[in-house]
Amino acid sequence: MLPLQIHLTLPPWIEDVADASRRYVTDEERVGLAIELSRHNIQYGSGGPFGAAVFDEHGRLISAAANRVVAQTCSVAHAEMLAYMVAQQRLASYRLNEQGGHYTLATSAQPCCQCYGATVWAGIDTLLIGARAEDVEELTEFDEGPLPADWPGELERRGISVRRDILREQARAVLAAYGATGESY
Amino acid sequence: MLPLQIHLTLPPWIEDVADASRRYVTDEERVGLAIELSRHNIQYGSGGPFGAAVFDEHGRLISAAANRVVAQTCSVAHAEMLAYMVAQQRLASYRLNEQGGHYTLATSAQPCCQCYGATVWAGIDTLLIGARAEDVEELTEFDEGPLPADWPGELERRGISVRRDILREQARAVLAAYGATGESY
Repeated sequence: MLPLQIHLTLPPWIEDVADASRRYVTDEERVGLAIELSRHNIQYGSGGPFGAAVFDEHGRLISAAANRVVAQTCSVAHAEMLAYMVAQQRLASYRLNEQGGHYTLATSAQPCCQCYGATVWAGIDTLLIGARAEDVEELTEFDEGPLPADWPGELERRGISVRRDILREQARAVLAAYGATGESY
Repeated sequence: MLPLQIHLTLPPWIEDVADASRRYVTDEERVGLAIELSRHNIQYGSGGPFGAAVFDEHGRLISAAANRVVAQTCSVAHAEMLAYMVAQQRLASYRLNEQGGHYTLATSAQPCCQCYGATVWAGIDTLLIGARAEDVEELTEFDEGPLPADWPGELERRGISVRRDILREQARAVLAAYGATGESY
């Protein structure tokens, strides 16, 4: 029998951290939530030190996610991938901005090669990033993987604006706390 | 209420095409199955013209998948991504070769930027490709997205050997048949 189903879950604490009734207006509020998700993920032992969330142009929260690679035995289950998947299911659209609107992904750290590629197809207009790739590689054992030389430029040319170093020190602090545990999930 | 679950399905005809009791020994048999999956996917209208499968070192089929982006309203649901996810769930390992063994992904066409990045983390040892990126872009409206300049070299340096142009003409024929329909899912 070949498996024909995939079922992935996010931990229930997500709803304690991410407030669907609130408006997240500034870049700092949005990346701040992604960092809070990363912090809780290591605190609860539910995955690696990465969080991400999708917002619409009014700052409404569409999805909130955290890394679930080990818990779900799934190398695809990075925070950004899960944030895209649940947002697309919720909006019933395989490209978030297909019907208009302006969507933003905020992530606690620079997307790896997988999440970078997924970002090209997900239908977002803005990518907000906390920690840099070099922070991830300095403070943890994670590798960002191979990216195009001008990775922000390739996104910009496809209509996705990129803003970096948002609350970078807060994002670095979570990575450092995780790296100090010696865990690797 | 934020969504906290993702459920993805593959179509039931997969089990008519992919034979879990057979050994797929040669590169041509393996890519041949991926191409058959792509052909059936357009024939049944269950997704775009892309198929992929994971095999172990004995040629046993671990997973078989096809593109499900539109059906599942999920830009992540490319054939290669689903093949990795179901194979990892089946083996209960987020890196297929974590416990040893040798795993191969066969895909009907060159992985796009998302599937390329996912390949870096999935735990395969060999990547077998049918059609080239230029075939996909010539014969359909799909875009492969931005890749590192030396994308095969980046995989080789991470221990993943890459073989291309396997049954390329058969793979091109499916892309051409799909392109002629004018569909875009």
